[in-house]
Amino acid sequence: MIFRQLFEPDSSTYTYLLACAETGTAALIDPVIDTVERDLEMIQQLQLKLAYTIDTHLHADHLTGARVLRDKTGCQVAFPEVEKPECADIPMKEGVPLQFGSIILDPLFTPGHTSHHFAYRVDNGTQYMVFTGDALLIEGCGRTDFQSGDSAILYRSIREKLFTLADETLVYPGHDYNGRHVSSIGQEKERNPRLGMAKTEAEFITIMKNLDLPYPRKIDFAVPGNEQCGRCPKNVPAEFQGPCVRFDQGE
Amino acid sequence: MIFRQLFEPDSSTYTYLLACAETGTAALIDPVIDTVERDLEMIQQLQLKLAYTIDTHLHADHLTGARVLRDKTGCQVAFPEVEKPECADIPMKEGVPLQFGSIILDPLFTPGHTSHHFAYRVDNGTQYMVFTGDALLIEGCGRTDFQSGDSAILYRSIREKLFTLADETLVYPGHDYNGRHVSSIGQEKERNPRLGMAKTEAEFITIMKNLDLPYPRKIDFAVPGNEQCGRCPKNVPAEFQGPCVRFDQGE
Repeated sequence: MIFRQLFEPDSSTYTYLLACAETGTAALIDPVIDTVERDLEMIQQLQLKLAYTIDTHLHADHLTGARVLRDKTGCQVAFPEVEKPECADIPMKEGVPLQFGSIILDPLFTPGHTSHHFAYRVDNGTQYMVFTGDALLIEGCGRTDFQSGDSAILYRSIREKLFTLADETLVYPGHDYNGRHVSSIGQEKERNPRLGMAKTEAEFITIMKNLDLPYPRKIDFAVPGNEQCGRCPKNVPAEFQGPCVRFDQGE
Repeated sequence: MIFRQLFEPDSSTYTYLLACAETGTAALIDPVIDTVERDLEMIQQLQLKLAYTIDTHLHADHLTGARVLRDKTGCQVAFPEVEKPECADIPMKEGVPLQFGSIILDPLFTPGHTSHHFAYRVDNGTQYMVFTGDALLIEGCGRTDFQSGDSAILYRSIREKLFTLADETLVYPGHDYNGRHVSSIGQEKERNPRLGMAKTEAEFITIMKNLDLPYPRKIDFAVPGNEQCGRCPKNVPAEFQGPCVRFDQGE
């Protein structure tokens, strides 16, 4: 398998490129509209063909690159089935793997950050890699105070689904704000200060309740935009309109 | 490839089990004498055959399990060639990979913690894994104030050899004292507070000079014991004699 971990600095989002080395068939997990050119350049350099974009959830902190990538490459847009926007092509569903080339991507329903969140698990040939989106972050987790967030549900998603994977499973998060790139299930069980094995559900709920986070900068346009697979609604502020204009994605 | 990351808590040492899934041929990187029974049990459970023990260097903080494992399984003992003890079977050398089953282990000469230190690189099917011994630790590095340590040499080993590997390369260290399990070359370049890309050689040398670390608890018996591939010299204090007695490895 070909693998690249790519970073979008404005929203600190990781986009992951996975491709089958034999067939050249590729997928992008959580592409960002701002970095579509970079992603396409990498796909071209590696002589791959983009078959799918795959979102972990309906993001509130950035616009997905899914729609632009479909326009430019003819790929299909995969989205969590619970709240699949009408614009998407493929509903992701637990128990229904998505295969491209020899790669089998296994959706794990992990709600709590949003009610429809999925993590995706892939076998790299030696250990599993799990792309945890905004459910489990390295030494953290996604916030639960907007959209359909629910701390008790997130706790169970992580403890009962992600933490039952093998300790050697590699954790590739949807974001990191401190330059961390990778962890493992064993490491998060041991070290995650919110959700590690030493923390009870009640403690986790209290921690999340007291985070006192600022209102998300992009939520007012990102959520309606992502409900259209990455189209720019009319309320995108001037400072964020760059990719909307470049890709002619405005309403 | 079959892969397990195992931990010895007294010296906070990671031992790594690698095995070819088709042939069942296995190797242990940096086994510890205290945890030989656990390692053998795991090898038996997984129905593997131990072909090699492979040390990254001559340890000062624990006795290697190499000799006992050879006694019990008939495996061969691989050791850095620069200071290969006479007891070892295979001298590891940069440019000369060790193959077991379909696994190819590539030795990278990375002196500085000791003058004869090797890291080992293995392709997991998707990205490289590098077993960095005590050269590069997660957000740290091995000390350079005893045996043949040299901070300037360690700096160059890491910057010119390990940090030239792909960013996605997984870093599996020889120790961690804080529950961390895995990192990547990209993460260490960005975050390592001693050796990250922002640090100069002069800054690194000053950091290492000022660490003011305690005298290693086991060095007086570990070094002569490891020069015999994990035999217990006469000066092992009573509190550490457990495995020497269990395995009849005393002088």
